[in-house]
Amino acid sequence: MTRTLIHGGLVITASDEVHADVLIEHGRIAALAAPGVLTADRTIDATGKYVIPGGVDAHTHMELPFGGTFASDTFETGTRAAAWGGTTTIIDFAVQSVGHSLREGLDAWHAKAEGNCAVDYGFHMIVSDVNEHTLKEMDHLVEEGVTSFKQFMAYPGVFYSDDGQILRAMQRSAENGGLIMMHAENGIAIDVLVEQALARGETDPRYHGEVRKALLEAEATHRAIKLAQVAGAPLYVVHVSATEAVAELARARDEGLPVFGETCPQYLFLSTDNLAEPDFEGAKYVCSTPLRPKEHQAALWRGLRTNDLQVVSTDHCPFCFVGQKELGRGDFSKIPNGLPGVENRMDLLHQAVLDGHISRRRWIEIACASPARMFGLYPKKGTIAPGADADVVIYDPHAEQIMSAETHHMNVDYSAYEGRRTTGRVETVLSRGEPVITEREYTGRAGHGVFTPRSTCQYLT
Amino acid sequence: MTRTLIHGGLVITASDEVHADVLIEHGRIAALAAPGVLTADRTIDATGKYVIPGGVDAHTHMELPFGGTFASDTFETGTRAAAWGGTTTIIDFAVQSVGHSLREGLDAWHAKAEGNCAVDYGFHMIVSDVNEHTLKEMDHLVEEGVTSFKQFMAYPGVFYSDDGQILRAMQRSAENGGLIMMHAENGIAIDVLVEQALARGETDPRYHGEVRKALLEAEATHRAIKLAQVAGAPLYVVHVSATEAVAELARARDEGLPVFGETCPQYLFLSTDNLAEPDFEGAKYVCSTPLRPKEHQAALWRGLRTNDLQVVSTDHCPFCFVGQKELGRGDFSKIPNGLPGVENRMDLLHQAVLDGHISRRRWIEIACASPARMFGLYPKKGTIAPGADADVVIYDPHAEQIMSAETHHMNVDYSAYEGRRTTGRVETVLSRGEPVITEREYTGRAGHGVFTPRSTCQYLT
Amino acid sequence: MTRTLIHGGLVITASDEVHADVLIEHGRIAALAAPGVLTADRTIDATGKYVIPGGVDAHTHMELPFGGTFASDTFETGTRAAAWGGTTTIIDFAVQSVGHSLREGLDAWHAKAEGNCAVDYGFHMIVSDVNEHTLKEMDHLVEEGVTSFKQFMAYPGVFYSDDGQILRAMQRSAENGGLIMMHAENGIAIDVLVEQALARGETDPRYHGEVRKALLEAEATHRAIKLAQVAGAPLYVVHVSATEAVAELARARDEGLPVFGETCPQYLFLSTDNLAEPDFEGAKYVCSTPLRPKEHQAALWRGLRTNDLQVVSTDHCPFCFVGQKELGRGDFSKIPNGLPGVENRMDLLHQAVLDGHISRRRWIEIACASPARMFGLYPKKGTIAPGADADVVIYDPHAEQIMSAETHHMNVDYSAYEGRRTTGRVETVLSRGEPVITEREYTGRAGHGVFTPRSTCQYLT
Amino acid sequence: MTRTLIHGGLVITASDEVHADVLIEHGRIAALAAPGVLTADRTIDATGKYVIPGGVDAHTHMELPFGGTFASDTFETGTRAAAWGGTTTIIDFAVQSVGHSLREGLDAWHAKAEGNCAVDYGFHMIVSDVNEHTLKEMDHLVEEGVTSFKQFMAYPGVFYSDDGQILRAMQRSAENGGLIMMHAENGIAIDVLVEQALARGETDPRYHGEVRKALLEAEATHRAIKLAQVAGAPLYVVHVSATEAVAELARARDEGLPVFGETCPQYLFLSTDNLAEPDFEGAKYVCSTPLRPKEHQAALWRGLRTNDLQVVSTDHCPFCFVGQKELGRGDFSKIPNGLPGVENRMDLLHQAVLDGHISRRRWIEIACASPARMFGLYPKKGTIAPGADADVVIYDPHAEQIMSAETHHMNVDYSAYEGRRTTGRVETVLSRGEPVITEREYTGRAGHGVFTPRSTCQYLT
Repeated sequence: MTRTLIHGGLVITASDEVHADVLIEHGRIAALAAPGVLTADRTIDATGKYVIPGGVDAHTHMELPFGGTFASDTFETGTRAAAWGGTTTIIDFAVQSVGHSLREGLDAWHAKAEGNCAVDYGFHMIVSDVNEHTLKEMDHLVEEGVTSFKQFMAYPGVFYSDDGQILRAMQRSAENGGLIMMHAENGIAIDVLVEQALARGETDPRYHGEVRKALLEAEATHRAIKLAQVAGAPLYVVHVSATEAVAELARARDEGLPVFGETCPQYLFLSTDNLAEPDFEGAKYVCSTPLRPKEHQAALWRGLRTNDLQVVSTDHCPFCFVGQKELGRGDFSKIPNGLPGVENRMDLLHQAVLDGHISRRRWIEIACASPARMFGLYPKKGTIAPGADADVVIYDPHAEQIMSAETHHMNVDYSAYEGRRTTGRVETVLSRGEPVITEREYTGRAGHGVFTPRSTCQYLT
Repeated sequence: MTRTLIHGGLVITASDEVHADVLIEHGRIAALAAPGVLTADRTIDATGKYVIPGGVDAHTHMELPFGGTFASDTFETGTRAAAWGGTTTIIDFAVQSVGHSLREGLDAWHAKAEGNCAVDYGFHMIVSDVNEHTLKEMDHLVEEGVTSFKQFMAYPGVFYSDDGQILRAMQRSAENGGLIMMHAENGIAIDVLVEQALARGETDPRYHGEVRKALLEAEATHRAIKLAQVAGAPLYVVHVSATEAVAELARARDEGLPVFGETCPQYLFLSTDNLAEPDFEGAKYVCSTPLRPKEHQAALWRGLRTNDLQVVSTDHCPFCFVGQKELGRGDFSKIPNGLPGVENRMDLLHQAVLDGHISRRRWIEIACASPARMFGLYPKKGTIAPGADADVVIYDPHAEQIMSAETHHMNVDYSAYEGRRTTGRVETVLSRGEPVITEREYTGRAGHGVFTPRSTCQYLT
Repeated sequence: MTRTLIHGGLVITASDEVHADVLIEHGRIAALAAPGVLTADRTIDATGKYVIPGGVDAHTHMELPFGGTFASDTFETGTRAAAWGGTTTIIDFAVQSVGHSLREGLDAWHAKAEGNCAVDYGFHMIVSDVNEHTLKEMDHLVEEGVTSFKQFMAYPGVFYSDDGQILRAMQRSAENGGLIMMHAENGIAIDVLVEQALARGETDPRYHGEVRKALLEAEATHRAIKLAQVAGAPLYVVHVSATEAVAELARARDEGLPVFGETCPQYLFLSTDNLAEPDFEGAKYVCSTPLRPKEHQAALWRGLRTNDLQVVSTDHCPFCFVGQKELGRGDFSKIPNGLPGVENRMDLLHQAVLDGHISRRRWIEIACASPARMFGLYPKKGTIAPGADADVVIYDPHAEQIMSAETHHMNVDYSAYEGRRTTGRVETVLSRGEPVITEREYTGRAGHGVFTPRSTCQYLT
Repeated sequence: MTRTLIHGGLVITASDEVHADVLIEHGRIAALAAPGVLTADRTIDATGKYVIPGGVDAHTHMELPFGGTFASDTFETGTRAAAWGGTTTIIDFAVQSVGHSLREGLDAWHAKAEGNCAVDYGFHMIVSDVNEHTLKEMDHLVEEGVTSFKQFMAYPGVFYSDDGQILRAMQRSAENGGLIMMHAENGIAIDVLVEQALARGETDPRYHGEVRKALLEAEATHRAIKLAQVAGAPLYVVHVSATEAVAELARARDEGLPVFGETCPQYLFLSTDNLAEPDFEGAKYVCSTPLRPKEHQAALWRGLRTNDLQVVSTDHCPFCFVGQKELGRGDFSKIPNGLPGVENRMDLLHQAVLDGHISRRRWIEIACASPARMFGLYPKKGTIAPGADADVVIYDPHAEQIMSAETHHMNVDYSAYEGRRTTGRVETVLSRGEPVITEREYTGRAGHGVFTPRSTCQYLT
């Protein structure tokens, strides 16, 4: 058995920053020790570098069918790109289709992922069709380690659940320990505004941002909170983008409700200015909830600092500009919704540390520890502590890079952050002790990553 | 050099709970390791026990002169009792008297503490007299590791600062990195109510609780927040006891202001019911801010869960019932203000874990990690990580005890928690690797504890 | 032409209280004058009495078809009872059935009312089916003096509109000056709770109050406000009953939104204690929104004082206990929803003056002036001023009465306020100068009352 | 006895707008009547004009000693200018000097006013020195019709009261029915900022606006509210200027507290842009609370619409630019605080009607009816109703004017609104039936106006 020692780095976790060596055995963290205490067969020099837990991206959509096409990253390409970006665990969304069982959907997603992933993965379950059978299946899925369920207040006719279906699923999750994740936008009202905009000839991508109003995100957020309160259930709101929605979460949390919020790098770094880029370029930035005017960013950063938002995920859901985003020329409502980002998250958030938005520990907390705790992966994932999986990133805080489609590893023909300079870069990545990225070379393999069953949300105990 | 290994326990820090062995060398944590990875000269068996960081009590008043008498615990008796209760660091308050320099006050407190303490200690500085000279001294004290300054909106004529003095001190702290700690009660208004109550013949201890109104705590809390906002300074409000005051802190934090709050076990576990105990027994519970009606406790627990309150300290300031509290017979305003508690804090908060108020990690966070970070002692104190001081407590989560003046080690003739049964008990305590309590025997010595200079507040970077 | 002078009374309007004589000519107020200034052919002595505008009840349901039966008051019996209670104008709700036009519904209600009413009446229009045709009809109705439109977030499958239909109607009203009135309860979620309660065997009337949760009223109130904000439209929320709903209105009004709220006497004077009356007697108090626990009453009174609630209407919708309410024995969801009250409103609110909840002027404002202004009847109705219709009540503030089904004039076999003693009683009522009640005798006639077209809401200019 | 009839106008009160004739006898309103009903000896043609109650300006400082000089309007010149501006009642502030009795101060102000006023006047009492004697005098003053008492949280060493003095005065007013009016600025903190600004060489008028921070107005407002809540007393906050202060009032009112707020035309129409005018011209706009950045105006208008602010007074306190304002050249803290405005208020608020900020009825409410009710003058003043004093203004809503020092009648060498065009102008003014202004000519006389004792605040019953 090989003992590997990462020595000389600054180990950063959600709560500690210590100069320590990290010993790895059997794919797990065996010890943290002051420099010099431990020796090993193999050493990795991390002098001058950060040694951080591998990122946990709790919101990805590999190969998602959407609007007649599929997200362009497979589990293979997507998890490889994740590794390049310092993320060693993704939680993807299996999809139930209306009229089908959760089981069918979950099996289909297992089939897509199994044997293809460079890093570990778990699944949330999208529940599109709440009924007596589905509710029972939820219990079984929790037992199988699929402990979170997503519902949509948007997308009527596709993923949409009405308030009764939401209430029923929340009641069930209150019993079986599952966590309801909510896409909180009033899709019924938005569809009226979409139809009216198109009728007025407002077809460019920027109208996507105008019709999906911040007030309608806030409304749905408030409604989901109240339904959860009635059900006695916790709630996790995905991809929060609007100041007004953050305010609803803050209000609920001040009252002591078990309500949580996630935002994404695109809402922190991009804005409606991007949606308004000419020549249909704005389509690259079409996602839902939509990008907001720049002024909203401050509220999101504040929410991350005050813990009214707990997690930054990517909602990685890439569609190529050519051939995919283009489906929506002349009708913004036909543009596939989604952005690439799984590779960029850790770097963008490190940049936020340098920009003064968050501390280093908070960087690790919102990108690694909190998503792991939120979705029952902790302390296996999300920290560096004896017994934890040796998912470790050696991060060079001084290296500079320029984000670009030419250099990124995601299977998509553009970067949402094209040309952006950031400081800090992943150097080496271990997944359960195995080198996936070694000094900026891919040394992993499809199939190394395995399905990781999860326990229930750890913020409720 | 001896290597000591604490093996078999569950190591709990603010962010992790892992079964790990803890290696100690040279008074510091040398390593955390999975069981079996490390060996040592000496081992301490912690099987079935918790291994936790020593508690950090950021608010004690040993030998405080107050109302013509002195707090009954000396630094010797008080720090010994702290150790018995699993607390390995205290931060006590040096007092500037009006007309004297900060230096004089600090020197006096150094003299009281030096050579007498069983565990490590630091000092905050009470600033009673803000003037040009004092403001300059604040800079020097920050450099010497006395990085926090307490002011009083209560006690006119004694510790009281007016809003101009507060503003000036806050402005200075905004520059030198110091942290203003505030006793937030409108003392000017309270003194009117005290005088009126006494004039009406309302002299019993319970009137102490009635005249020091929750609204006047909330008012002062709001005022301190606004003054800090004008000064561009952070603020730490001590001994928060009222629902309305928590609401002011929550409001400020929602706006992103760097405002922090501390509460104390007495507000979490006791109430005006105690103040109303007959035969002058209520005097035992006279402290300021006062105990509140029981209904306020829920808001304090909620604040601790939502991180609107960050720290639980004791405000340990004991006065014997006989001869000291009795000074206020016939006039509640003459009862020395303060309760004993330095020995009880860790146990009471562990009980709160069992009662479902907080999680185990949050227990360690509010009692160890957050006070250490708040006052610049981290990661030396407040966590178990390589390089940290080996201030470690082996805690038996199953042992039962009954709190009582007959068995406690504080130098005071009553317990505020007399007869209370709790589950969980300190078994062994190390201070920088030295055993202070060894399987429920005192093995420490006066003078082991040393003055510990502090860096500035770590929640602001 | 006869000149009538009401002399010697205290004239109370929404803003003034003056000892003045009131001269009536041609069915209108001709003058208010200091005593002695005017003479007339006929005088009515009001010495020691109040002279107040006739009440305007903006929410009645005469002959409403509901749950397979009809509200038991016809326009004839209902308006006669209104007159007995000092109310000289009602605004009733014409109903559009799904699949039919607004016109058909309005015509049907005109047919029911015409020639039958003792006092004047107007109509709101219940919009059950929003579509392009309906939206155009709304414009016409505004021109005809039917300037307010009610939608339901409750009662799926019957009156229910989804959020898209609500948004469209609000957008239309923003253009044509109409006012959307909202029944704000999340009916989709409530229906789930109803089904679950019945499945558990919870069939008694009191479960009606438990499933229709305050949080689901507050949720819908918030949602309606946000939809109105998106539409740029004003909003009037009917029968507000829950503390949490008042809070949503207050929050919106603090932000300056044109949002209004109505409550009803049953929410101010009755509670879930009534719903829990044994032997199915609770069925008498089944209405939606439901009665709330007594604690909610204070918030409603406060809302009326702070003008977060502007109007008190009755939602008069009587069903006899025998034969009608009894339809719901064994299944509370089958109990026809509604209470009698059109006759009791002015007296109950006068009692509230005596109880210290509101001032005399506010009594007249919430019961006469504000409903008249809100629904475009002012200054024709709702005040005593030159030019206004001579709808005048002479009210004896000292007379005592006991409310009872034995003495009331509503066509229903029970009183919701049976046995309640109140001080204050209507003595004489004029409608456009004609005596309808003369010293406690009915001197009116069916057909005196006429349809009264209304201008648009006067709180928006 | 002469009967005068104002015919043909639109009579506007706080609650009604009716085309009516107004009959005046014995200096009082004898009747309001539909056109043609009444005849009289003398008629005034108001065709095409508004007939409104004379304005009530509840906040003036004629001849106020301040900073070594005196406000430049005497009671004679000031009340004449008031009449020119359509104001027929002023409530001025008698001043207690520290060490003197209320009686002495009140007598001195009676002496200044008696025999000199063109219109009626009342007094508030400034309480600078709360002690047992003063508290007793407050009771007597209430009986004499001086029912409101002003205290200052600003101006330490001059008018300043500490929180204990404020609490005592509030407690007294809770008993005797008086109303405490508060200048809410944290003067202790402001004085620190003033000193620091001057030390930095920031001496221009615009620094007056910078040191008197909005947050310190909001803080004091909150503090005054809490002290009033402790005392069980109502509170009236004068000259509210900051968004944050309005928010505190709104919050208190939402909780049902009897808290009221006044703003002034200068805060609604002027801003820090004026304070920054070059060549020391900014000094013309120095008043406290200070002018705020323009963005605050929207919050004030919203507060007036939502009734979180109830009254618009002028805080008329003129100092000539030459010789008075100039005292502060080189030191903004020496600029006498105050603006002229008593003549401009009714016109500026009428302009606000035209600008869409408020309705016509609300114009009359905030400028006439509410101040009269607030300070116990209603219905004698503030409305047009039988029995009320015939203080009536015939107002031409179409006439245009340009405000200017060259044309105004206030005894001050500049206008705060120089060059501003407004639509609407006073044409004729009656005070108790006597013509003071007759078709734009002054026909009044010093001594017509008399001291008018007031009952207690009418918003509390």
